[in-house]
Amino acid sequence: MKENEMIFGARAVIEAIQAGKEVDKVLIKRDFQGELTRELFAIARETNIPVQRVPQEKLERLTRKNHQGVIAFIPAITYQKLEDIIPFLYEEGKSPFIVLLDGITDVRNFGAIARTCECAGVDAIVIPPKNSVTVNADAIKTSAGALHTLPVCKEKSITDAIRFLKDSGVTVIAASERAEKKYIDADYTTPVALVLGAEDMGVATDNLRISDEIVKIPLSGTIASLNVSAAAAILTFEVVRQRQSSL
Amino acid sequence: MKENEMIFGARAVIEAIQAGKEVDKVLIKRDFQGELTRELFAIARETNIPVQRVPQEKLERLTRKNHQGVIAFIPAITYQKLEDIIPFLYEEGKSPFIVLLDGITDVRNFGAIARTCECAGVDAIVIPPKNSVTVNADAIKTSAGALHTLPVCKEKSITDAIRFLKDSGVTVIAASERAEKKYIDADYTTPVALVLGAEDMGVATDNLRISDEIVKIPLSGTIASLNVSAAAAILTFEVVRQRQSSL
Repeated sequence: MKENEMIFGARAVIEAIQAGKEVDKVLIKRDFQGELTRELFAIARETNIPVQRVPQEKLERLTRKNHQGVIAFIPAITYQKLEDIIPFLYEEGKSPFIVLLDGITDVRNFGAIARTCECAGVDAIVIPPKNSVTVNADAIKTSAGALHTLPVCKEKSITDAIRFLKDSGVTVIAASERAEKKYIDADYTTPVALVLGAEDMGVATDNLRISDEIVKIPLSGTIASLNVSAAAAILTFEVVRQRQSSL
Repeated sequence: MKENEMIFGARAVIEAIQAGKEVDKVLIKRDFQGELTRELFAIARETNIPVQRVPQEKLERLTRKNHQGVIAFIPAITYQKLEDIIPFLYEEGKSPFIVLLDGITDVRNFGAIARTCECAGVDAIVIPPKNSVTVNADAIKTSAGALHTLPVCKEKSITDAIRFLKDSGVTVIAASERAEKKYIDADYTTPVALVLGAEDMGVATDNLRISDEIVKIPLSGTIASLNVSAAAAILTFEVVRQRQSSL
């Protein structure tokens, strides 16, 4: 995490949020109290920015600057909006291809997935504001620069994003090890969104429930699961394969 | 690298090699000379173990023990032989599915590929003795334990391994960005071996030349290439897909 990706101090953070600056997350010293703190929590709640109380030492490890008990992380990219991207793709005569990441917090996995998605021609990646990665310099590096060209949408929630996509005529297909249907038996030639979950938890049950289909990658061997970035490579290139075969 | 994965001192290393112990690589202090050194280089040449001269400081960084100018790395797994595995697979009525890694030196990539291969039902991974990974504790960890069950063959060279596989009735298909043929247009339902190269260099030209086919993964977007572990996931699961579809 570079220092130019952080804002220090409660007042500066509040002003940045008020000015409409994008903030991924705010860390606040565990015992920090008072009017400013209340103001900070209020504006963060309004704008859906997660605030986390942490010990002083955690803040010290992040910077040697005078953080005054509050550090906000600003993303290294500009997030885009799904509601702008989908109509634009339809206007261009394209069949949207979206990837939603539900609870993926590992920056390297996120970067690797972004790199693969860019190579597969994915139109946008969707992440939620909470329990998700901060799109920082490490993520961009692991993505081999893909995050500079591939749009990332930070939506209010993955659930809302799925609903929006379905309303927009996009088929939402979630991956789960517990699915019955094999991923190769689904049809990806229509507008499609893939939902991938973190390796430990998978896609949230609520999100599986509202998806159009749930598919699994059948596994041989004795190991429980694929790494999520390997699963992303297999699924996104199955979409590419089917779309090329259907031309 | 853990210390139980190393042997220290020229005499001990020579004795270990003479006793048939597997050694991945030997590091020797840059200015180390004399009869023992000559003996070490001779036996390493005979047994095809790479020896590398390094500065004193490199050895100091690896261990605080008395290394006496020589450190040998012993693999955390027992290598197997392709010439044992292939006949065994045929006897079992299986169609061999082998993955050859040409010049992949990154331990994390290697571990990730091993994990994916195990999930895809690959029968063995082949690595060369030189310009390759040391199968150490980090590799095993990244593989999520796959390297404990998936056979790894360290063959004299990838070229020899390709020749042996072709002589054994296995179709050898190498991946290269410069190929004309798309990977989805190749047939993987026969006995098959995939050859994957490092991201910077790709599969060696000599090895491309003797492979039965060269295929590419067609890419969208503006990024030059997939990460090799993503390419491994896409290719190995295309084999799985075709074999399941052909049942």
